Amino acid sequence: MLEHGGRLSAAALNFGIPLNEWLDLSTGIAPYGWALPPIPATAWTRLPEADDGLEIAARDYYGVASLLPVAGSQAAIQALPRLRRNARVGIVSPAYAEHAAAWAREGHRLLQLSEAGVNRALERLDVLLLVNPNNPTGRRFTPEQLLSWHARLAVRGGWLVVDEAFIDCTPEHSLAARSDLPGLIVLRSFGKFFGMAGIRLGFVLAQQGLLDQLAELLGPWAVSGPARAVATALLQDQAGQRVQRQRLLVDGERLGELLREHGLPPSGGCALFHWIACERAAGLHDFLAGHGILTRLFDNPTSLRFGLPADEQGWQRLQQALRACRSEFIRDQGGGIARSIADKSAPTYKGIE
Amino acid sequence: MLEHGGRLSAAALNFGIPLNEWLDLSTGIAPYGWALPPIPATAWTRLPEADDGLEIAARDYYGVASLLPVAGSQAAIQALPRLRRNARVGIVSPAYAEHAAAWAREGHRLLQLSEAGVNRALERLDVLLLVNPNNPTGRRFTPEQLLSWHARLAVRGGWLVVDEAFIDCTPEHSLAARSDLPGLIVLRSFGKFFGMAGIRLGFVLAQQGLLDQLAELLGPWAVSGPARAVATALLQDQAGQRVQRQRLLVDGERLGELLREHGLPPSGGCALFHWIACERAAGLHDFLAGHGILTRLFDNPTSLRFGLPADEQGWQRLQQALRACRSEFIRDQGGGIARSIADKSAPTYKGIE
Repeated sequence: MLEHGGRLSAAALNFGIPLNEWLDLSTGIAPYGWALPPIPATAWTRLPEADDGLEIAARDYYGVASLLPVAGSQAAIQALPRLRRNARVGIVSPAYAEHAAAWAREGHRLLQLSEAGVNRALERLDVLLLVNPNNPTGRRFTPEQLLSWHARLAVRGGWLVVDEAFIDCTPEHSLAARSDLPGLIVLRSFGKFFGMAGIRLGFVLAQQGLLDQLAELLGPWAVSGPARAVATALLQDQAGQRVQRQRLLVDGERLGELLREHGLPPSGGCALFHWIACERAAGLHDFLAGHGILTRLFDNPTSLRFGLPADEQGWQRLQQALRACRSEFIRDQGGGIARSIADKSAPTYKGIE
Repeated sequence: MLEHGGRLSAAALNFGIPLNEWLDLSTGIAPYGWALPPIPATAWTRLPEADDGLEIAARDYYGVASLLPVAGSQAAIQALPRLRRNARVGIVSPAYAEHAAAWAREGHRLLQLSEAGVNRALERLDVLLLVNPNNPTGRRFTPEQLLSWHARLAVRGGWLVVDEAFIDCTPEHSLAARSDLPGLIVLRSFGKFFGMAGIRLGFVLAQQGLLDQLAELLGPWAVSGPARAVATALLQDQAGQRVQRQRLLVDGERLGELLREHGLPPSGGCALFHWIACERAAGLHDFLAGHGILTRLFDNPTSLRFGLPADEQGWQRLQQALRACRSEFIRDQGGGIARSIADKSAPTYKGIE
């Protein structure tokens, strides 16, 4: 199993701080959202049925004609590589590591690509996979760029797979509306924007034939009844979605500003997280963890991802810790020199091909 | 996708009876059970973590040292065939059809066996798969018989897979306690006995090495947070389990008796359902559906499965419909001849090898 954010219990053990005293910024999941809508008793007791309104609500929300609910976009990530054989798969890297692991597991040939390397590699690929906005770098791809890559792949029967797990705050960048194109597969996460990661729900947007194959692999009743009931209500709540989107965008800006103010200018980010590539990421991670603040540390490139605090108390706590962090790291440098903690001469990630 | 019980919406459309007027006896899921235990808010909002107590509660309940929670035993049924290559797989048939579909999907060679045919076929098999008690026939296998088959398979690196989805009322027949044997894989369903089929939870009991492989295929966060919270509480509630077991056993007896009284002697069954093999199954199914009672019709062999009514009103309704059914079917026969509706000279299922 790969390492992931959200492993608060492990952090509590590692750093000797009780579970309920942590500020968990280690994921990119919205830390606030909806009150739980009413869930009918039958959602718990009966096998889920497909005609309960979830698909209709989701098609409206995503603006598509065909989609497949899955038990988290993770379920689609695991299953998609089973729909091709011996593919050459380019993954714009670094990216959410489960993609590469899933394609490798099924025996495909992987090419880790920098964004700049895509054009050159494209003619050799059967599948191009990227995350937009990217996790953890926050890098965005324009729809025009993606559709141009898609066109070059599709003409040879290739696929463009776009993981849009973090796109709900900026739907204008989404390819959802074009997911009826052959060879275009869009993955959406429900839990991140709606703040309901525990229910395990995501959607695959693609042509119906591909969705049918995927459904066959995933089997019946893949999504739980309570998840279906909750998501149906939230996907229909357009007013709530506007409030959530606005709040996340404002908080995303605030997080970026706060990090900059404390000598940690983000290398990238989106509404739900900011990302800092710097050589001292591990030291920063452990310093913050010592203050009961969990961030997500990445090795390659050496970097740190910050999610959003849930409330004002969390913001204040983060601010205090960042202030202490700056003092500590400046003292390390011999004091007096108010240089940036995130050494910008340090290597940020290098595209790999 | 295969046909399944529980498709009430489809029945409502087919028979023109509103959804809320049906008595659904088409599944083998306990129609009553537990009040919903408290679910912490974080079970909905955060990614599920593995150290929340579910595994401990489940190991206690099943009496095993290692197990893997999965999103319904269906998830394990879909994934298990991916752990072997080119196996010769014997399935004691008829049985829950998803098993054969899953092994066929992965390119294995299937042999549908009668119970009597197992001994002869065993030396040619890599995997023997059976459901105990069997769904839909209700047929039971003794632990001694199963362990003897297992021993013959295991010595050659073979597997015995026992789907114990309906065994919770008769745990003395379970092989759970022996699931530490190499090559023995026991599947357990949570939703059927506990009456919580909507949460999508099951368990695989087997040696840790096999569970690790399975976990890798299923990926992280396979079971939802609310499912984990609910199941942890119910698996710990030993008093509640005793009540549920007793009630289901009594109701299972009552169902068998009621069917017998109305000329429909079960060919087999268990606490959660009874099964009637007879040529007129389709006619019976449609007659009962016309009265708003949904049963599960099988083609091969021609047969009908009845689940349990939830309450006294349901029992009365079933009794009245069975009475009307008997009158109707006797009139069909020319009247006057009080013969059994379930023609016992009709072919019951034939074992196929």
